[in-house]
Amino acid sequence: MEIPTYEDIEIAHLRIKRFIHRTPVLTSRSLNEMFGCNLFFKCENFQKVGAFKARGALNAVLSLPQEYLKNGIATHSSGNHAQALAYAGRIVGTKTTIIMPSTSSEVKISAVRGYGAEIIFCEPNQKSREETLAEFVSRTNAKFIHPYDNNFVIAGQGTASKELIEDVEHLDFILTPVGGGGLLSGTSIATKHLSPKTQIFGVEPKGADDAFRSLRDGRIYPSVEPKTIADGLLTSLSERTFTIITKNVNQILTVAEESIIQSMRLIYERMKIIVEPSGAVPFAAIVEYPELFQGGNVGLILSGGNVDLRKLPFF
Amino acid sequence: MEIPTYEDIEIAHLRIKRFIHRTPVLTSRSLNEMFGCNLFFKCENFQKVGAFKARGALNAVLSLPQEYLKNGIATHSSGNHAQALAYAGRIVGTKTTIIMPSTSSEVKISAVRGYGAEIIFCEPNQKSREETLAEFVSRTNAKFIHPYDNNFVIAGQGTASKELIEDVEHLDFILTPVGGGGLLSGTSIATKHLSPKTQIFGVEPKGADDAFRSLRDGRIYPSVEPKTIADGLLTSLSERTFTIITKNVNQILTVAEESIIQSMRLIYERMKIIVEPSGAVPFAAIVEYPELFQGGNVGLILSGGNVDLRKLPFF
Repeated sequence: MEIPTYEDIEIAHLRIKRFIHRTPVLTSRSLNEMFGCNLFFKCENFQKVGAFKARGALNAVLSLPQEYLKNGIATHSSGNHAQALAYAGRIVGTKTTIIMPSTSSEVKISAVRGYGAEIIFCEPNQKSREETLAEFVSRTNAKFIHPYDNNFVIAGQGTASKELIEDVEHLDFILTPVGGGGLLSGTSIATKHLSPKTQIFGVEPKGADDAFRSLRDGRIYPSVEPKTIADGLLTSLSERTFTIITKNVNQILTVAEESIIQSMRLIYERMKIIVEPSGAVPFAAIVEYPELFQGGNVGLILSGGNVDLRKLPFF
Repeated sequence: MEIPTYEDIEIAHLRIKRFIHRTPVLTSRSLNEMFGCNLFFKCENFQKVGAFKARGALNAVLSLPQEYLKNGIATHSSGNHAQALAYAGRIVGTKTTIIMPSTSSEVKISAVRGYGAEIIFCEPNQKSREETLAEFVSRTNAKFIHPYDNNFVIAGQGTASKELIEDVEHLDFILTPVGGGGLLSGTSIATKHLSPKTQIFGVEPKGADDAFRSLRDGRIYPSVEPKTIADGLLTSLSERTFTIITKNVNQILTVAEESIIQSMRLIYERMKIIVEPSGAVPFAAIVEYPELFQGGNVGLILSGGNVDLRKLPFF
């Protein structure tokens, strides 16, 4: 299986640059003092569509030959990849279709429609998603853009860490959340090349710890009935992301739900920025295992900021 | 009555510079498109202590002769000025005492204590605040730092607009919230000097419109039983701020509570940053009167980001 190289990330960056934000890296003296290390937050919550997913989707769509674009693009997603693909489709001027569970929130539906994509609703389970997509693709010849099992998507996601490492020298650690593993894969390829001494950690909710178990046992476990507030991290690794992560990543850390909520609250209260639960997961590893990072320079990807404000977990 | 000049703001800036953040100016393409003007948000929600008040308090305290500092400093406040004065007191190493209503929230009490200040509780009304402070000051000879009726405080608050105008050329409008009028006074002095063609607007909740009525009728109305979610804007103008605002400010706009809540929500959802209700008030004027600002470059001071996350008005 071919996997992306650092050169693919460099090319991706050139390709997507004018359609994305070079997001800022924020620091907080009070959080540094609280946890005894120097934290560098890469603010992908400020990215286009509110999440790093814009990078991968754009790289994939901008790489498609013209003859693919004429039939449109499609995916199934209820999350940030849906908005990202809709945004990318609008930029290249192709029809974008998103298969979404009929139970998706009004907020998400109108965000996707806001970018001009069409929605086909399916039953709220994996089987119905995949079948509805397969039927649509075979009927229309639309190009399916997978949210993470795609080399262009992985290379695109890697551009976030490329920027972070360009902006902050001497990172001892870099932490990303893990769901399907696209962001962690891209991050690991960029980091191995640009800063080979930096330790690369994936962070995952304990209630969705399939990547942790998969890496431990050397085989992919599917994510079965995951239970976590971090609703962007429910998916399973693919062969592709499993292979890359196994090769490059030092460790997968798992974090408790209380740590995720506490880390969200600290980010809101101290940094005055909005992050979604999945985006707070890397910082939750600092909250839960501060001893691992003492005195170190730690880069964290704040992966997204799309959260329903009526459902914040601050009770 | 002597009032601050632009030179006082310049000196203030030199004095406080190393203790404050030069906060970023953020923009949002989607909000610009939505309202038909170019919005420049000066992010004082990212300022030390979470609000612009750090500027004025620091300038006042750093200007005090040594013989005043030995008896300590004091104020009455349940809001951001309390934290700001505590922060300033810690920097100069003097004892800081804050008179706070006994009903103040745990969050605010622990924030003030976190900066090392001492708290004396009083009854939750203006009379008890003032009497408790007067008794404390006469007993200890501590120096009272008023939250806005103080030329050094006003000059310090003016440094926020100085930075904004240095960073963004050709502002057609500059908008700040109005409570006691310290920020609006300092803003108006800086703006008149640096960008004389810029129109200066104060914005106030309709439920606390004493500044609007005072400017209209040419006399100070006290703020009587104000009712608004913008709890930083409950205070009345002083002779000093009334004089400065009457001389410099083009207009006071009043905004409905629904506009304040809608503008908070837009800032959270589109910009992914946390702002307190009072801080969203200038943007509420754009939401409520977009026709006034069509095609213009509009600077807004997002004055603070201290908000109880358990009480967000997104129901």
